[in-house]
Amino acid sequence: MVRNPDLIASIRSIPDFPKKGIVFRDITTLLKDRVAFNRAIDILHEHYRSKEISKVVSVESRGFIFGAPLAYTLGAGFVPVRKPKKLPAEIIREEYKLEYGTDAVEIHKDGISSEDRVLIVDDLLATGGTILATAKLVERLGATIVSLGFLIELSFLNARERLQAYDVFSVIKYDSE
Amino acid sequence: MVRNPDLIASIRSIPDFPKKGIVFRDITTLLKDRVAFNRAIDILHEHYRSKEISKVVSVESRGFIFGAPLAYTLGAGFVPVRKPKKLPAEIIREEYKLEYGTDAVEIHKDGISSEDRVLIVDDLLATGGTILATAKLVERLGATIVSLGFLIELSFLNARERLQAYDVFSVIKYDSE
Repeated sequence: MVRNPDLIASIRSIPDFPKKGIVFRDITTLLKDRVAFNRAIDILHEHYRSKEISKVVSVESRGFIFGAPLAYTLGAGFVPVRKPKKLPAEIIREEYKLEYGTDAVEIHKDGISSEDRVLIVDDLLATGGTILATAKLVERLGATIVSLGFLIELSFLNARERLQAYDVFSVIKYDSE
Repeated sequence: MVRNPDLIASIRSIPDFPKKGIVFRDITTLLKDRVAFNRAIDILHEHYRSKEISKVVSVESRGFIFGAPLAYTLGAGFVPVRKPKKLPAEIIREEYKLEYGTDAVEIHKDGISSEDRVLIVDDLLATGGTILATAKLVERLGATIVSLGFLIELSFLNARERLQAYDVFSVIKYDSE
Protein backbone atom coordinates (compact mmCIF):
# COMPACT_ATOMS: atom_id res chain seq x y z
CA MET A 1 0.00 0.00 0.00
CA VAL A 2 1.29 3.41 -0.90
CA ARG A 3 -0.13 6.14 1.28
CA ASN A 4 1.57 9.52 1.65
CA PRO A 5 4.63 8.36 -0.32
CA ASP A 6 6.36 11.74 0.14
CA LEU A 7 6.23 11.27 3.90
CA ILE A 8 7.42 7.64 3.72
CA ALA A 9 10.38 8.87 1.68
CA SER A 10 11.39 11.15 4.56
CA ILE A 11 11.63 8.26 7.03
CA ARG A 12 14.98 6.52 7.49
CA SER A 13 15.07 2.74 7.87
CA ILE A 14 17.82 1.37 10.11
CA PRO A 15 18.36 -2.40 9.95
CA ASP A 16 19.14 -4.36 13.11
CA PHE A 17 18.24 -1.56 15.58
CA PRO A 18 17.75 -1.84 18.51
CA LYS A 19 18.54 -5.51 17.87
CA LYS A 20 19.22 -7.95 15.04
CA GLY A 21 16.27 -8.64 12.75
CA ILE A 22 14.35 -5.43 13.55
CA VAL A 23 14.10 -2.67 10.94
CA PHE A 24 13.84 0.54 12.94
CA ARG A 25 11.76 3.31 11.32
CA ASP A 26 13.63 6.47 12.28
CA ILE A 27 11.28 9.46 12.23
CA THR A 28 13.97 12.05 13.05
CA THR A 29 14.58 12.55 9.32
CA LEU A 30 10.89 13.42 8.88
CA LEU A 31 10.88 15.70 11.92
CA LYS A 32 13.85 17.78 10.80
CA ASP A 33 12.26 18.33 7.37
CA ARG A 34 10.01 21.35 7.92
CA VAL A 35 7.71 20.48 5.02
CA ALA A 36 7.29 16.81 5.99
CA PHE A 37 6.76 17.58 9.70
CA ASN A 38 4.17 20.28 8.97
CA ARG A 39 2.39 17.99 6.52
CA ALA A 40 2.23 15.10 8.99
CA ILE A 41 0.61 17.33 11.61
CA ASP A 42 -1.76 18.82 9.02
CA ILE A 43 -2.96 15.36 7.92
CA LEU A 44 -3.72 14.38 11.51
CA HIS A 45 -5.36 17.75 12.19
CA GLU A 46 -7.53 17.52 9.09
CA HIS A 47 -8.67 14.04 10.11
CA TYR A 48 -9.67 15.09 13.64
CA ARG A 49 -10.69 18.75 13.36
CA SER A 50 -14.45 18.11 13.35
CA LYS A 51 -14.36 15.46 16.09
CA GLU A 52 -14.75 17.83 19.06
CA ILE A 53 -11.65 16.55 20.85
CA SER A 54 -11.27 18.12 24.31
CA LYS A 55 -8.03 16.36 25.37
CA VAL A 56 -5.11 14.85 23.50
CA VAL A 57 -3.29 12.13 25.45
CA SER A 58 0.22 11.04 24.44
CA VAL A 59 2.82 8.62 25.72
CA GLU A 60 6.34 9.80 26.46
CA SER A 61 8.48 10.69 24.79
CA ARG A 62 8.14 10.50 20.99
CA GLY A 63 4.35 10.57 21.29
CA PHE A 64 4.65 14.11 22.70
CA ILE A 65 6.16 15.28 19.38
CA PHE A 66 2.86 14.63 17.59
CA GLY A 67 0.35 14.91 20.42
CA ALA A 68 1.36 18.39 21.60
CA PRO A 69 1.10 20.11 18.19
CA LEU A 70 -2.26 18.41 17.62
CA ALA A 71 -3.57 19.56 20.99
CA TYR A 72 -2.53 23.07 19.97
CA THR A 73 -4.12 23.01 16.50
CA LEU A 74 -7.31 21.33 17.77
CA GLY A 75 -7.63 23.77 20.67
CA ALA A 76 -7.57 20.86 23.11
CA GLY A 77 -5.78 20.29 26.40
CA PHE A 78 -2.72 18.03 26.45
CA VAL A 79 -2.29 15.18 28.96
CA PRO A 80 1.01 13.30 29.19
CA VAL A 81 1.12 9.58 29.97
CA ARG A 82 4.47 8.72 31.50
CA LYS A 83 6.64 5.88 32.70
CA PRO A 84 6.44 5.20 36.47
CA LYS A 85 7.47 7.83 39.03
CA LYS A 86 7.71 10.77 36.65
CA LEU A 87 4.35 12.42 37.46
CA PRO A 88 4.29 14.39 40.74
CA ALA A 89 0.58 14.29 41.74
CA GLU A 90 -1.89 11.47 42.35
CA ILE A 91 -1.77 8.88 39.55
CA ILE A 92 -3.34 5.66 38.33
CA ARG A 93 -1.19 2.98 36.68
CA GLU A 94 -1.58 0.23 34.07
CA GLU A 95 0.95 -2.55 33.60
CA TYR A 96 1.50 -4.24 30.25
CA LYS A 97 3.55 -7.14 28.98
CA LEU A 98 6.78 -6.77 27.06
CA GLU A 99 8.59 -9.53 25.18
CA TYR A 100 10.51 -10.08 28.42
CA GLY A 101 8.91 -8.84 31.64
CA THR A 102 6.44 -6.01 32.16
CA ASP A 103 6.34 -2.22 31.96
CA ALA A 104 3.82 0.33 33.18
CA VAL A 105 2.35 3.71 32.29
CA GLU A 106 0.81 6.33 34.56
CA ILE A 107 -1.53 9.29 34.22
CA HIS A 108 -2.58 12.00 36.65
CA LYS A 109 -5.97 11.19 38.15
CA ASP A 110 -7.11 14.78 37.60
CA GLY A 111 -5.73 14.93 34.04
CA ILE A 112 -9.01 13.80 32.49
CA SER A 113 -12.65 13.92 33.54
CA SER A 114 -15.70 11.90 32.50
CA GLU A 115 -16.85 14.74 30.20
CA ASP A 116 -13.70 14.56 28.09
CA ARG A 117 -13.58 13.42 24.47
CA VAL A 118 -10.08 12.03 24.12
CA LEU A 119 -7.75 11.50 21.19
CA ILE A 120 -4.77 9.26 22.01
CA VAL A 121 -1.73 10.02 19.83
CA ASP A 122 1.56 8.18 19.41
CA ASP A 123 4.31 8.12 16.81
CA LEU A 124 4.19 4.38 16.16
CA LEU A 125 1.63 1.57 16.34
CA ALA A 126 3.53 -1.71 16.59
CA THR A 127 2.00 -4.52 18.70
CA GLY A 128 -0.23 -2.02 20.53
CA GLY A 129 0.67 -2.93 24.10
CA THR A 130 1.48 0.59 25.30
CA ILE A 131 -1.49 2.16 23.57
CA LEU A 132 -3.92 -0.43 24.97
CA ALA A 133 -2.63 0.29 28.49
CA THR A 134 -3.04 4.02 27.79
CA ALA A 135 -6.61 3.50 26.56
CA LYS A 136 -7.40 1.60 29.78
CA LEU A 137 -6.08 4.52 31.86
CA VAL A 138 -8.36 6.94 29.99
CA GLU A 139 -11.36 4.62 30.38
CA ARG A 140 -10.76 4.17 34.09
CA LEU A 141 -11.11 7.94 34.38
CA GLY A 142 -14.51 7.69 32.69
CA ALA A 143 -13.74 9.62 29.50
CA THR A 144 -14.77 8.81 25.92
CA ILE A 145 -12.01 7.64 23.58
CA VAL A 146 -12.80 9.15 20.20
CA SER A 147 -9.85 7.66 18.32
CA LEU A 148 -6.24 6.44 18.40
CA GLY A 149 -4.02 8.34 15.94
CA PHE A 150 -0.51 7.44 14.79
CA LEU A 151 2.12 8.70 12.41
CA ILE A 152 3.22 5.15 11.52
CA GLU A 153 1.38 1.84 11.66
CA LEU A 154 3.25 -1.47 11.27
CA SER A 155 0.13 -3.19 9.98
CA PHE A 156 1.81 -6.60 9.58
CA LEU A 157 1.89 -6.84 13.40
CA ASN A 158 -1.93 -6.82 13.44
CA ALA A 159 -2.37 -4.48 16.40
CA ARG A 160 -5.83 -3.56 15.09
CA GLU A 161 -7.08 -6.96 16.19
CA ARG A 162 -6.31 -6.07 19.81
CA LEU A 163 -7.71 -2.57 19.30
CA GLN A 164 -11.05 -3.55 17.72
CA ALA A 165 -12.96 -1.56 20.33
CA TYR A 166 -11.43 1.68 19.01
CA ASP A 167 -11.29 3.84 15.93
CA VAL A 168 -7.69 3.75 14.60
CA PHE A 169 -6.09 6.15 12.12
CA SER A 170 -2.51 6.24 10.82
CA VAL A 171 -0.75 8.59 8.41
CA ILE A 172 1.72 5.99 7.09
CA LYS A 173 1.37 2.21 6.89
CA TYR A 174 4.07 -0.41 6.46
CA ASP A 175 2.58 -3.72 5.28
CA SER A 176 5.83 -5.62 5.80
CA GLU A 177 9.25 -5.18 7.39
CA MET B 1 7.73 39.93 39.30
CA VAL B 2 4.28 39.22 37.91
CA ARG B 3 4.35 38.17 34.27
CA ASN B 4 1.51 36.25 32.67
CA PRO B 5 -0.31 35.84 36.00
CA ASP B 6 -3.11 33.82 34.33
CA LEU B 7 -0.57 31.23 33.23
CA ILE B 8 1.17 31.14 36.61
CA ALA B 9 -2.22 30.46 38.19
CA SER B 10 -2.56 27.35 36.04
CA ILE B 11 0.69 25.83 37.37
CA ARG B 12 0.50 23.54 40.39
CA SER B 13 3.21 23.78 43.05
CA ILE B 14 4.10 20.54 44.81
CA PRO B 15 6.25 20.88 47.94
CA ASP B 16 9.02 18.35 48.65
CA PHE B 17 9.02 16.73 45.18
CA PRO B 18 11.11 14.95 44.01
CA LYS B 19 12.80 15.45 47.39
CA LYS B 20 12.47 17.46 50.60
CA GLY B 21 13.03 21.20 50.26
CA ILE B 22 12.27 21.40 46.53
CA VAL B 23 9.04 23.02 45.32
CA PHE B 24 8.18 21.25 42.09
CA ARG B 25 6.39 23.37 39.48
CA ASP B 26 3.94 20.94 37.89
CA ILE B 27 3.04 22.08 34.37
CA THR B 28 0.51 19.29 33.72
CA THR B 29 -2.27 21.52 35.10
CA LEU B 30 -1.34 24.16 32.50
CA LEU B 31 -1.11 21.60 29.70
CA LYS B 32 -4.55 20.12 30.31
CA ASP B 33 -6.13 23.61 30.27
CA ARG B 34 -6.77 24.22 26.57
CA VAL B 35 -6.77 28.01 26.96
CA ALA B 36 -3.57 28.13 29.01
CA PHE B 37 -1.69 25.69 26.79
CA ASN B 38 -2.68 27.51 23.61
CA ARG B 39 -1.73 30.84 25.14
CA ALA B 40 1.70 29.60 26.25
CA ILE B 41 2.50 28.41 22.71
CA ASP B 42 1.13 31.65 21.22
CA ILE B 43 3.37 33.79 23.46
CA LEU B 44 6.45 31.82 22.41
CA HIS B 45 5.38 31.90 18.77
CA GLU B 46 4.78 35.66 18.83
CA HIS B 47 8.22 36.21 20.33
CA TYR B 48 10.02 34.14 17.68
CA ARG B 49 7.91 34.44 14.55
CA SER B 50 10.10 37.05 12.84
CA LYS B 51 13.42 35.43 13.80
CA GLU B 52 13.74 33.14 10.76
CA ILE B 53 14.14 29.97 12.81
CA SER B 54 14.90 26.95 10.61
CA LYS B 55 15.16 24.30 13.37
CA VAL B 56 13.70 23.95 16.84
CA VAL B 57 15.78 21.73 19.14
CA SER B 58 14.26 20.31 22.33
CA VAL B 59 15.38 18.02 25.12
CA GLU B 60 13.33 14.94 26.02
CA SER B 61 10.78 14.59 27.22
CA ARG B 62 8.87 17.62 28.56
CA GLY B 63 10.81 19.90 26.22
CA PHE B 64 9.10 18.13 23.29
CA ILE B 65 5.70 19.37 24.53
CA PHE B 66 6.67 22.98 23.78
CA GLY B 67 9.30 22.54 21.07
CA ALA B 68 7.19 20.47 18.68
CA PRO B 69 4.19 22.85 18.55
CA LEU B 70 6.58 25.78 18.07
CA ALA B 71 8.38 24.01 15.22
CA TYR B 72 4.97 23.52 13.62
CA THR B 73 3.77 27.11 14.04
CA LEU B 74 7.12 28.57 12.97
CA GLY B 75 7.31 26.29 9.93
CA ALA B 76 10.63 24.92 11.18
CA GLY B 77 12.07 21.42 11.40
CA PHE B 78 12.15 19.70 14.79
CA VAL B 79 15.29 18.04 16.18
CA PRO B 80 15.11 15.96 19.37
CA VAL B 81 17.99 15.90 21.86
CA ARG B 82 17.86 12.69 23.85
CA LYS B 83 19.40 10.80 26.72
CA PRO B 84 22.13 8.29 25.73
CA LYS B 85 21.37 5.32 23.44
CA LYS B 86 17.92 6.45 22.32
CA LEU B 87 18.88 7.83 18.89
CA PRO B 88 19.48 5.19 16.20
CA ALA B 89 21.86 6.95 13.76
CA GLU B 90 25.28 8.59 14.16
CA ILE B 91 25.33 10.94 17.17
CA ILE B 92 27.52 13.39 19.06
CA ARG B 93 27.33 13.57 22.85
CA GLU B 94 27.85 16.16 25.61
CA GLU B 95 28.22 15.26 29.27
CA TYR B 96 27.18 17.61 32.05
CA LYS B 97 27.39 17.63 35.83
CA LEU B 98 24.53 16.81 38.14
CA GLU B 99 24.42 17.40 41.87
CA TYR B 100 25.74 13.83 42.19
CA GLY B 101 27.51 12.35 39.16
CA THR B 102 27.09 13.19 35.49
CA ASP B 103 24.53 12.80 32.75
CA ALA B 104 24.71 13.20 28.98
CA VAL B 105 22.64 14.32 26.01
CA GLU B 106 22.93 13.27 22.37
CA ILE B 107 21.90 14.62 18.98
CA HIS B 108 21.97 13.12 15.50
CA LYS B 109 24.97 14.41 13.58
CA ASP B 110 22.80 15.01 10.52
CA GLY B 111 20.00 16.67 12.52
CA ILE B 112 21.42 20.15 12.02
CA SER B 113 23.67 21.80 9.46
CA SER B 114 25.87 24.90 9.56
CA GLU B 115 23.21 26.91 7.67
CA ASP B 116 20.61 26.36 10.39
CA ARG B 117 19.25 29.12 12.63
CA VAL B 118 18.31 27.25 15.80
CA LEU B 119 15.86 27.92 18.61
CA ILE B 120 16.41 25.67 21.65
CA VAL B 121 13.21 25.12 23.65
CA ASP B 122 12.62 23.51 27.04
CA ASP B 123 9.88 23.60 29.63
CA LEU B 124 12.05 24.73 32.53
CA LEU B 125 15.24 26.75 33.04
CA ALA B 126 16.66 25.80 36.44
CA THR B 127 20.47 25.73 36.80
CA GLY B 128 20.92 25.51 33.05
CA GLY B 129 23.15 22.42 32.89
CA THR B 130 21.13 20.46 30.34
CA ILE B 131 20.48 23.47 28.16
CA LEU B 132 24.15 24.46 28.12
CA ALA B 133 25.10 20.93 27.02
CA THR B 134 22.40 21.11 24.33
CA ALA B 135 23.73 24.48 23.12
CA LYS B 136 27.22 22.96 22.84
CA LEU B 137 25.87 20.11 20.71
CA VAL B 138 24.25 22.61 18.34
CA GLU B 139 27.43 24.69 18.15
CA ARG B 140 29.59 21.65 17.45
CA LEU B 141 27.41 21.09 14.39
CA GLY B 142 28.21 24.62 13.24
CA ALA B 143 24.73 26.14 13.46
CA THR B 144 23.70 29.56 14.77
CA ILE B 145 21.82 29.62 18.08
CA VAL B 146 19.24 32.38 17.78
CA SER B 147 17.76 31.99 21.26
CA LEU B 148 16.90 29.74 24.19
CA GLY B 149 13.17 29.75 24.99
CA PHE B 150 11.43 28.39 28.10
CA LEU B 151 7.99 28.18 29.57
CA ILE B 152 9.32 28.65 33.13
CA GLU B 153 12.47 30.29 34.44
CA LEU B 154 13.56 29.83 38.06
CA SER B 155 15.45 33.11 38.01
CA PHE B 156 16.70 32.81 41.60
CA LEU B 157 19.01 30.02 40.41
CA ASN B 158 20.84 32.53 38.19
CA ALA B 159 21.20 30.31 35.13
CA ARG B 160 21.46 33.42 32.95
CA GLU B 161 24.97 33.97 34.30
CA ARG B 162 26.10 30.69 32.75
CA LEU B 163 24.12 31.45 29.60
CA GLN B 164 25.45 34.98 28.97
CA ALA B 165 26.51 34.04 25.45
CA TYR B 166 22.89 33.50 24.45
CA ASP B 167 19.59 35.29 24.10
CA VAL B 168 17.19 33.89 26.73
CA PHE B 169 13.40 34.26 26.82
CA SER B 170 10.90 32.80 29.29
CA VAL B 171 7.12 33.02 29.49
CA ILE B 172 6.92 32.73 33.28
CA LYS B 173 9.49 33.70 35.93
CA TYR B 174 9.71 32.62 39.55
CA ASP B 175 11.94 35.00 41.55
CA SER B 176 11.96 32.76 44.61
CA GLU B 177 10.99 29.23 45.67
